[in-house]
Amino acid sequence: MLSQHYKEMCKTPSVIRALSVYATERGKEIGYENVFDYSLGNPSVPAPDAFNEAIVSLTKELDSAALHGYSPNPGNPEVRRIVAESLKRRFGLDYGPEHIFMTSAAASAIAHALRCVAAPGDEVLTFAPHFPEYYPYINETGARIKVVPADTDGFQINFEAFEELLTPSVQAVLINTPNNPTGVAYSSATLKKLSDILYSKQEEFGHEIFIISDEPYREIVFEGADAPYVSTFYDNTLSCYSFSKSLSVPGERIGYVAVNPKAKDAEMIVPMCVQISRGIGHNCPSSIIQMAMARCIDMTSDLKVYEKNMNILYNELTSLGYTVVKPGGTFYIFPKALEDDANAFCEKAKKYDLILVPSDSFGVKGYFRMAYCIETEKVERSLEALRRFTESEYR
Amino acid sequence: MLSQHYKEMCKTPSVIRALSVYATERGKEIGYENVFDYSLGNPSVPAPDAFNEAIVSLTKELDSAALHGYSPNPGNPEVRRIVAESLKRRFGLDYGPEHIFMTSAAASAIAHALRCVAAPGDEVLTFAPHFPEYYPYINETGARIKVVPADTDGFQINFEAFEELLTPSVQAVLINTPNNPTGVAYSSATLKKLSDILYSKQEEFGHEIFIISDEPYREIVFEGADAPYVSTFYDNTLSCYSFSKSLSVPGERIGYVAVNPKAKDAEMIVPMCVQISRGIGHNCPSSIIQMAMARCIDMTSDLKVYEKNMNILYNELTSLGYTVVKPGGTFYIFPKALEDDANAFCEKAKKYDLILVPSDSFGVKGYFRMAYCIETEKVERSLEALRRFTESEYR
Repeated sequence: MLSQHYKEMCKTPSVIRALSVYATERGKEIGYENVFDYSLGNPSVPAPDAFNEAIVSLTKELDSAALHGYSPNPGNPEVRRIVAESLKRRFGLDYGPEHIFMTSAAASAIAHALRCVAAPGDEVLTFAPHFPEYYPYINETGARIKVVPADTDGFQINFEAFEELLTPSVQAVLINTPNNPTGVAYSSATLKKLSDILYSKQEEFGHEIFIISDEPYREIVFEGADAPYVSTFYDNTLSCYSFSKSLSVPGERIGYVAVNPKAKDAEMIVPMCVQISRGIGHNCPSSIIQMAMARCIDMTSDLKVYEKNMNILYNELTSLGYTVVKPGGTFYIFPKALEDDANAFCEKAKKYDLILVPSDSFGVKGYFRMAYCIETEKVERSLEALRRFTESEYR
Repeated sequence: MLSQHYKEMCKTPSVIRALSVYATERGKEIGYENVFDYSLGNPSVPAPDAFNEAIVSLTKELDSAALHGYSPNPGNPEVRRIVAESLKRRFGLDYGPEHIFMTSAAASAIAHALRCVAAPGDEVLTFAPHFPEYYPYINETGARIKVVPADTDGFQINFEAFEELLTPSVQAVLINTPNNPTGVAYSSATLKKLSDILYSKQEEFGHEIFIISDEPYREIVFEGADAPYVSTFYDNTLSCYSFSKSLSVPGERIGYVAVNPKAKDAEMIVPMCVQISRGIGHNCPSSIIQMAMARCIDMTSDLKVYEKNMNILYNELTSLGYTVVKPGGTFYIFPKALEDDANAFCEKAKKYDLILVPSDSFGVKGYFRMAYCIETEKVERSLEALRRFTESEYR
């Protein structure tokens, strides 16, 4: 019999996906270059040439078994060593290959990390606004999501609400910095306070509370932003990384879980991920992609365009009177809508061929997200539409 | 708190893995060429040149977004179309792209297929001897595995035992033909009888019973073998395929679920797989690997060596007096051990540097598996060790 549960899930389509489909359809009518499509977080800059060169060289250098053979379940050992050394060099934590579990990008990293520390019946806290997929990521483990209401002043953490929800059944806290959808990074002060609270509550509750740190935007940080590495603040941290955005290779599905070497039973966690893999389908990434990534370990795509786009949009939005927290990274910005109902606001924007995502599916009302991973030229052309929309509808 | 469940799972190491590690260690002492390592099912023939050529061409032909950008969750649409057309052409079922869900090889295909049709509390039947990973594959969905005892005469199906275990709580039957570990393929008569029983029990129970067909060895079939395509016998079939063995690319993690177009609610099953992916970590394979595979859709590696190795071993084993069913495919053979305790038998074989896998972890006692995906020259050299072992220990 077909699973009723997954049948039901099919009935709630993604708002973002629907907007992206609308943008594509509208593009067929007026030319896609005239649709200001801020819907999808799909990297717009190419992968580094070195990545493609690595793929080509690997096919020439290695024999078929070394190139396409099974990786051990936690990943290619040499690749894990290279990842660990890079993290150690950059962040000063004593990572070894035994702390690295290679995954099919961040979704798979989070799926493994959550199952390591949260069982059915447990609770996992996360913070609004958050990536909509946190619902299935958490709920499908059997644990239950609880969402801490947003700190709308600065999109840091609403600590009062957090402490209220932080009960003994909470086994993990899922954070995302720099953040999708706000673009804001948690400051050192925020992470210090978060970790102080968690250290004290671990003591009080008599069990560990893990931070699952979702970090796909770690390398997209703008000038002057205070965007520190989460794991340096809190020992029981599992960093979930993806190269999708830093190397512009989202389709290649490559990332990892990095276990803080000082975490409780740190040496057990990668073997546990191996066991988890056996039940949820082997998530080890492609062998050639692992090796190509390792050859580009400390590179990124040319990410400057995102900061340039952010500044153009931020300046225009503020000059039009929008309330908006300046992003410290990512390729998102999250202004307050000009009416309480963000859905109505974004619906009206469509008339101006501006595709904006209402904030409701991110867990807050009254905001909208713009994903500015598009050409700067298009961002510039969109400003006139943004002005016309704002002035015609809200003046 | 770390999950006790996965911590516990870490404590039961894989017998096959342990033997493979032993073989590697022994190789360091006497030279690996002198260890007759029949432990691991790792393809020994190279991938087709066309596969590597496709990878190189793709990096040159496509722009970065087309090459490395996100695939839609069920896979690259053009790749799904190519897979469907190939299946339709070869097996005469009316597959369309809507019936194909791309996965990280067979493990991921089975993880998705099982969750489509079996929920916690349900039962899933499988047949001994079976791949040991069927335990976590099934049990970790929340459903419960029940193993039908082996038909040791021919390694077809013990139908009497099957009908006894086929109760109304069984929602799915997981089969594997050609089979790991026996190398035997289910005949047309076997599949006809299996499907007759299932059709009648569907009627009786008033709910569908799905066949999950694990088919990584589908293309490795030997002369004269009757090894038909499962889905042509039974409408409610989800075929779980992997290119790991047919193209010798196990590390690239590429395969699919193919939904029989006549299955109940066939058009719902791929969208359900998409939902399942959201909870278990996105299992979509690498973008470039999907496209490279599609360019080799009807190719295989040069698989003839497996049949050659099988014949050499089969002839020697029978002439030494072993009871053994002749494999119809794969790169495995599964003879009866010469004493009741297969573990003791395989332990003694180690003295002759023969690495054989005892049958216990496959769900039957008293047999052993040889994975003959090794060089023919080594198979030939191993015969003398096999003779010495058999004669010294059992004459």
